[in-house]
Amino acid sequence: CVTRQFATAKESSLFDPLDTFADRHIGPNDHEVEHMLSKLGYNSMDSFVDAAIPTPIRLSESSVSDQTIPSLSESELFKRAKALASENKPFKSYIGMGYHNAVVPPVILRNITENPAWYTPYTPYQPEIAQGRLESLVNFQTMIMSLTSMHIANASLLDEGTAAAEGMAMAFVSSSSKRSTFVVDKGVLPQTIAVLRTRAKGFGIKLAIGDVSELLGEPSVRSDLCGVLLQYPDVNGQVKDYSTLVESVHAVKGVVVVATDLLALTMLKPPGEWGADIVLGNSARFGVPVGYGGPHGAFFACSEKLKRKMPGRLIGRSRDAMGKLAYRLALQTREQHIRREKATSNICTSQALLANMAAMYAVYHGATGLTRIAQKVHGFTKVLKSQIEDFGYSVDNDVFFDTLTVNASNVQGGAQVVHETASRANINLRKIDDTRVGVTLDESLATADLIKLINIFGSAASASPVSDIQLTEIDKSYIPTNLQRSSEILPHPVFNTHHSETEMLRYIHDLQSKDLSLVHAMVPLGSCTMKLNSTSSMIPLTWPEFNSIHPFAPEEQVQGYRKLLKELEVDLCTITGFAACSLQPNSGASGEYAGLTVIRAYHESRGEAHRNICLIPVSAHGTNPASAVMAGLKVVPIKTHQDGTLDLEDLKAKSEMHKDNLAAFMITYPSTYGVFEDGVQDACKIIHDNGGQVYLDGANLNAQIGLTNPATCGGDVCHLNLHKTFAIPHGGGGPGVGPICVAQHLAPFLPSHPLVKTGGDKAINAIASAPFGSASICVISWAYIKMLGGNGLSHSSKVALLNANYIAHRLSGHYGLRYKNVKGRVAHELLIDLAEFDKSAGLKVMDFAKRLQDYGFHPPTCSWPTSTAMLIEPTESESLDEIDRFCDAMIQIRGEVQQIIDGKQPKENNLLKNAPHPMSVMVLPEDQWERPYSRQEAAYPLPWLYERKFWPTVTRIDDAYGDLNLICDCPSVEEMTS
Amino acid sequence: CVTRQFATAKESSLFDPLDTFADRHIGPNDHEVEHMLSKLGYNSMDSFVDAAIPTPIRLSESSVSDQTIPSLSESELFKRAKALASENKPFKSYIGMGYHNAVVPPVILRNITENPAWYTPYTPYQPEIAQGRLESLVNFQTMIMSLTSMHIANASLLDEGTAAAEGMAMAFVSSSSKRSTFVVDKGVLPQTIAVLRTRAKGFGIKLAIGDVSELLGEPSVRSDLCGVLLQYPDVNGQVKDYSTLVESVHAVKGVVVVATDLLALTMLKPPGEWGADIVLGNSARFGVPVGYGGPHGAFFACSEKLKRKMPGRLIGRSRDAMGKLAYRLALQTREQHIRREKATSNICTSQALLANMAAMYAVYHGATGLTRIAQKVHGFTKVLKSQIEDFGYSVDNDVFFDTLTVNASNVQGGAQVVHETASRANINLRKIDDTRVGVTLDESLATADLIKLINIFGSAASASPVSDIQLTEIDKSYIPTNLQRSSEILPHPVFNTHHSETEMLRYIHDLQSKDLSLVHAMVPLGSCTMKLNSTSSMIPLTWPEFNSIHPFAPEEQVQGYRKLLKELEVDLCTITGFAACSLQPNSGASGEYAGLTVIRAYHESRGEAHRNICLIPVSAHGTNPASAVMAGLKVVPIKTHQDGTLDLEDLKAKSEMHKDNLAAFMITYPSTYGVFEDGVQDACKIIHDNGGQVYLDGANLNAQIGLTNPATCGGDVCHLNLHKTFAIPHGGGGPGVGPICVAQHLAPFLPSHPLVKTGGDKAINAIASAPFGSASICVISWAYIKMLGGNGLSHSSKVALLNANYIAHRLSGHYGLRYKNVKGRVAHELLIDLAEFDKSAGLKVMDFAKRLQDYGFHPPTCSWPTSTAMLIEPTESESLDEIDRFCDAMIQIRGEVQQIIDGKQPKENNLLKNAPHPMSVMVLPEDQWERPYSRQEAAYPLPWLYERKFWPTVTRIDDAYGDLNLICDCPSVEEMTS
Ligand SMILES: Cc1ncc(COP(=O)(O)O)c(C=O)c1O
Ligand SMILES: Cc1ncc(COP(=O)(O)O)c(C=O)c1O
Ligand SMILES: O=C([O-])O
Repeated sequence: CVTRQFATAKESSLFDPLDTFADRHIGPNDHEVEHMLSKLGYNSMDSFVDAAIPTPIRLSESSVSDQTIPSLSESELFKRAKALASENKPFKSYIGMGYHNAVVPPVILRNITENPAWYTPYTPYQPEIAQGRLESLVNFQTMIMSLTSMHIANASLLDEGTAAAEGMAMAFVSSSSKRSTFVVDKGVLPQTIAVLRTRAKGFGIKLAIGDVSELLGEPSVRSDLCGVLLQYPDVNGQVKDYSTLVESVHAVKGVVVVATDLLALTMLKPPGEWGADIVLGNSARFGVPVGYGGPHGAFFACSEKLKRKMPGRLIGRSRDAMGKLAYRLALQTREQHIRREKATSNICTSQALLANMAAMYAVYHGATGLTRIAQKVHGFTKVLKSQIEDFGYSVDNDVFFDTLTVNASNVQGGAQVVHETASRANINLRKIDDTRVGVTLDESLATADLIKLINIFGSAASASPVSDIQLTEIDKSYIPTNLQRSSEILPHPVFNTHHSETEMLRYIHDLQSKDLSLVHAMVPLGSCTMKLNSTSSMIPLTWPEFNSIHPFAPEEQVQGYRKLLKELEVDLCTITGFAACSLQPNSGASGEYAGLTVIRAYHESRGEAHRNICLIPVSAHGTNPASAVMAGLKVVPIKTHQDGTLDLEDLKAKSEMHKDNLAAFMITYPSTYGVFEDGVQDACKIIHDNGGQVYLDGANLNAQIGLTNPATCGGDVCHLNLHKTFAIPHGGGGPGVGPICVAQHLAPFLPSHPLVKTGGDKAINAIASAPFGSASICVISWAYIKMLGGNGLSHSSKVALLNANYIAHRLSGHYGLRYKNVKGRVAHELLIDLAEFDKSAGLKVMDFAKRLQDYGFHPPTCSWPTSTAMLIEPTESESLDEIDRFCDAMIQIRGEVQQIIDGKQPKENNLLKNAPHPMSVMVLPEDQWERPYSRQEAAYPLPWLYERKFWPTVTRIDDAYGDLNLICDCPSVEEMTS
Repeated sequence: CVTRQFATAKESSLFDPLDTFADRHIGPNDHEVEHMLSKLGYNSMDSFVDAAIPTPIRLSESSVSDQTIPSLSESELFKRAKALASENKPFKSYIGMGYHNAVVPPVILRNITENPAWYTPYTPYQPEIAQGRLESLVNFQTMIMSLTSMHIANASLLDEGTAAAEGMAMAFVSSSSKRSTFVVDKGVLPQTIAVLRTRAKGFGIKLAIGDVSELLGEPSVRSDLCGVLLQYPDVNGQVKDYSTLVESVHAVKGVVVVATDLLALTMLKPPGEWGADIVLGNSARFGVPVGYGGPHGAFFACSEKLKRKMPGRLIGRSRDAMGKLAYRLALQTREQHIRREKATSNICTSQALLANMAAMYAVYHGATGLTRIAQKVHGFTKVLKSQIEDFGYSVDNDVFFDTLTVNASNVQGGAQVVHETASRANINLRKIDDTRVGVTLDESLATADLIKLINIFGSAASASPVSDIQLTEIDKSYIPTNLQRSSEILPHPVFNTHHSETEMLRYIHDLQSKDLSLVHAMVPLGSCTMKLNSTSSMIPLTWPEFNSIHPFAPEEQVQGYRKLLKELEVDLCTITGFAACSLQPNSGASGEYAGLTVIRAYHESRGEAHRNICLIPVSAHGTNPASAVMAGLKVVPIKTHQDGTLDLEDLKAKSEMHKDNLAAFMITYPSTYGVFEDGVQDACKIIHDNGGQVYLDGANLNAQIGLTNPATCGGDVCHLNLHKTFAIPHGGGGPGVGPICVAQHLAPFLPSHPLVKTGGDKAINAIASAPFGSASICVISWAYIKMLGGNGLSHSSKVALLNANYIAHRLSGHYGLRYKNVKGRVAHELLIDLAEFDKSAGLKVMDFAKRLQDYGFHPPTCSWPTSTAMLIEPTESESLDEIDRFCDAMIQIRGEVQQIIDGKQPKENNLLKNAPHPMSVMVLPEDQWERPYSRQEAAYPLPWLYERKFWPTVTRIDDAYGDLNLICDCPSVEEMTS
């Protein structure tokens, strides 16, 4: 049957919409579903699903259906989104506090933010097909290193608050003599302090918050000091000379952590030049919209001596097999999935897309452009100060970059009248107290905006309005010489070349052309759920009504957002079977940490604060033990059987052994081996019987929707990865959203926020800087859920199961599939074990992965959760054609392997060991070819590759060389010309 | 100096905006400009420009400056565009008359319409680097052939009106015995009739408009009949069985031309099945926004026997040198630049981008989806009819697809009250007369829209409102069996595969990856001005306030558009030095035709209708003589000297010889040889002295802005290509906008429109279907002009001149540059002659062009205006780096040529003759390589190619084979599986 029908073609009434999203989201249509079912030996989807999922945990059809979650067509969704958007009021906010109105260069907006080739790829674990975004992330690191004057920087963290918490943890673990007091200056952002409070508790760190000089004077503080956190400039705009203070901290071996602002650093002496050990902040004002709080890329830099303790992903330079410069993720041993319970950070998904936007912003503006922008912002701030002083206001901070703390005590009406006047002009200023008003300027102000702002202060002081002809530039300097930057910024060629839009466009497209993403082929990464990220769900995201809202804007301005977020929370509760939800965590790992912290608070509320044991199966994702440790829990591993199932005996034994101190059990379901195993409810019961709570890692929720749910399985709390199951694109390594859903008894403990009311009445402190985390991209998941509706959601999960089982079926006989359920079925992903080929042919998992690149596929997840295996997850969005193409490639590779096994190809020089084969290898002269196979066999092993070939741009990358010669910035002028 | 500055870096005040567009639009910065000037031996830009442009025609600095055209920064532009947008009121229009509310699939909007990789390439003259959009255009042709059931279809025309005019011209020239009456049914769209009136006059065709059956009964008509034009369904919605009528037309050897609607053809018997010879229409309702009239892709199909007379571009299948299927422009001999004055069509730029959108819409929906949409639209129309008949209305047309002519004579208040009620609900209906109201439904209606529409009629008839539960589907058929379609639509695999968004996204990106565009490299096509198409100028285009407006919407709803279009007209007049402007023509060629028709009307108004001689230099673009012929003029060629300059003696002699009948002189300035020659004012004076008017072809206006202008040169009228000089992207072969500007005495004759007042008080008839042509993309040029401002515009022209002269300088000594002015300078482009290499090495222009592809460049314009030459135009947007890269490539190729000249490489088997070298050639086994050079030399002749390589996807294409075996649709199921 050649004529393709639609995925959900059904008899429908004339009055039903035609632009139903399920038809477009789900790959296989009804005929193809039938075909796959029949290959597997089922005559209905229901009988198939019954075989894959144990009966005891199945849900009734109606729990997730169009009754509980009605579906909207694509055009209905746009209308609804528009209606909600119109309930937001995008006032212009000069509130500051870490959030600015960013100006996104249009060429970046269209060609990165709105471009699936940039937003759909996964974290660059396969560097040979990811050199584009690796280069861009190196640009980000280089930019951070240059602006902060630090030795090394990572490729982004989740937000400024959690970055500060990472800094605190690094200070704590670096302090040789178990010192545990961490001093936080009162000038630090309040939301950062809230996140630190949460995190300090887990680690057992003592926070001392106040005037940092005073605190350092206290002997009890000095003797126990592990580090300090400073904000530069501080929340009130003041810029201080900390050099003496730094010396005094270093004198007692404390670590100096500085939160700072990238734009200010183009003019201010960078922390690296006055002794900071760790420098961090938010990069969003470099062209990333404020988006009601996020997502934004935080940055994190440190000194040479701390570099091997740095959290997050670090991109480094290495070389490929032909000696060519190549980028790759460096020091992967630091990643949480290796260090597990020895980790002090659980960061996994971070903010790659936003880091790329910020880096590209710097590429576009360059050193000259950034300096011009900074000078303008500062110049406007000086003009504002001078003008409002004429009206009778005074300014509390004498040294400033872009922020003034305006004192209105000499003005009748004080701060309140200023705010009222501003509000009438659709402007938000920072509310400090009755006399003081905060105002922070940014790149978005045109001269007309400045005049408007001046006249708001004027009008509140009953002065007559000024006009542009009255404005003059202020010569006087408000940055003392010792705080002025004298060192050069961004001398690297990449920041000084692509300044015309044409050049910028070509640079973006040049990088993009090196990367394999969902626009090319299936990215069957197990545990990552790389499904369609639909255009219709992405479009509303960049509307100003969603994009231009300050996270601390008054509630009456964000009614549309609040409704949308509430609807999302409710739908997620419907889907998980839980009672309440928090959208605050910015990644899965952050959700884990939040959930475990909620569990701890729950125990504490019942007088059981001592419960500190967390049972975790050995097969768990590395973030699980890391999160447990961060939440102050002790990890006790639980065995799994040879067939991958949980060892219930071991679980029972350990639960009973730790009965008095049992806090939680963390389990991934279906398991990380890709199977819905029996007995999950029994396992949970064992935990509950022993006083523990069950944390369900929702990474695999795509297998469950409408079929089972975490509550039914026996969980008390779960996180969801909206960037997996709910179609937020992975962004090449982030953003993510990791909300947690909890049972009723845990609802009171959901996280709070210091500036905006969130969470329950016994709320834990904040988990993230913004009250609703990465609010703007929640629009994507909201749209996804609304458009599929309950029926579409559960159909998606069924097809996800079917696609995986169909692959298992096609690969059987070719590859070993050790993990299935009693009925021979896998869940939404499958684990194939390649250990045998190491013995028979000397081949490792990586050899298979690199060879798949030659076939134009992104390799599946490698060597996790079993080191000799590949975890394959197709998702519901892949069509039968694509899945067959993938299976054909796998089977063809198996044939290539047989040649080696049979001795027809040598073990050290063959198609797999030499893979991938980039273009530069194809053109080698015959006397350098030296391979026992032809060029065609290397590049075009299957005929369809002649039509649709993706070329890796480098040969296999030498990780050992890169880790030995760790260089994490882009080449300098000298290197480029040498 | 490595640190790049900005293009227009200058001392500026703190209060000036930083996001100035000129900095981003112009490639070379001030340092680079200085560098280039010094290489050319000038110490200032002014002295350089003085050498390039003759003094007598220079303008004062102030004529195009920030005083006459103030500049807006990018953010100011957005604000202004938003303000104008908000003055448009996007009512929902059910006016029909050829314009519908289209639903653009989001995946197409983002990945084609808003994607520079799709919108920036040029017409696919270089098929080896254009297989993607060639395939897409073949899909368009296939779709048209299938839906109309015709033998062949072209790759789009400008709009339905001009397509009908092309049909009429084909009927006229096909009529063996000089018959000249063309019958037009009164059911044809009024705007089409207006365009036919204009065009008929030029050709001397007699139009007979009325009831076609009646007219055919008249003996005088029958005996002189060349053809008829029918509308199916007609403007009032009626669908008629024309089969008998067709027989009667064929009986007298007349040609049957049918204007039709693609969506209706999924349900109606297609014209090809009832004998039509030519079928045409507008494809916009297949996912192209209405955009206040355009741009839209018209389609044009004809029978086997007429195919070699078909106007426009035709894509055909051929094969490459390795025998692989490859697409290319077929039968290029039909293109106007070859046929010149023997042409009956001047179509050049057409509507490729819009044709691609429509084709992709069909790919996305497929046969099933299109039929579902048609059935829904028709089903809703039946429900509407039934409901309003209940209210007391009657419907005049008994057979219909989507349009009802509603008779309100039995309803109190009649049509007027219906319109008033609709208007209060922000809805436009078609105004026919006091009793009849037209209403046309489309895909965009949701059930709620239908109910709203029904209730408007209800309320106007004082009936009580209906709600959704009252609606029922109507079983009765309103399409008689003999008018129902029974044949299959779109069986080809491409229309039945890519229905999920993931598949669609990959198909779009797969095609895109085959095409070289401005996102990759310079496209230095002489006479085409491939400059930056900035994102900031593209963004407003897709706002609904610009995109969703019916061209016949009442004037009070389009105030924003009117102001914007007026501003554009005024700015274009400032730039050209003329008094008035018409934006109606949809391409340069259409502008030429409009301008010449205006000249004829002017002569006629002075009693000099006999003036019919048009002098045209032999070097003119092929559209010039073709347009002249279409305007009823006789072309007399004027010689040029050996050095490319106009032969003023010959001009004088011919002018005087034809003095009594001299109508016009058409000249391109600077000349098509890329030189500002002296004496243009003298030439124009000769014409004026002999009673003629001067038409200036503005294709080269990019050389002139602010430096000289057509009025100063002596012209009376010029067209501009907004898709060249004013930054509308070329779209891979269109859209275009070709406005004409005229001197005061010609202003009264500017084109009118039958439904919206445009043009002067002695206006000629319409040139295009829509009153303001392709209004929506005029937003791009408006933004471009406003953002550059006068200073930026003239700086752009200066840099365009400089870039071209710098290339001339670098290539001199390597290539022969025959055409320069007396001071040794070229204008904004340069012509290099390659004739010598044919003699010395057997190399043709095409060999150089194909070899440039291997270097990753789009070749310059080839073999025009001189068959042995290349015309190179860099534009101001290309940076010095890119220009140097191009020159390096040209020089390297010259070295490769020397090897052949020196006998070191054979004449028939060398790097140029075998070019381009796609990937499939690179992998040939050694025994098939058979080339006297290495693979590296073939693919990576210069080192930077290792970093930035674009691969042609096929080897050189065999045009002869393709033209002999003309196949213009995509492979069918059978071919795919055989
Ligand atoms: C099973 C599992 N748990 C947790 C995570 C962590 O999620 P995130 O990367 O969003 O922090 C992942 C990530 O892939 C995962 O696969
Ligand atoms: C000199 C000249 N005149 C006229 C035209 C026709 O313009 P259009 O393609 O917009 O019809 C062209 C197109 O390239 C041209 O180069
Ligand atoms: O990102 C993961 O570690 O799976």
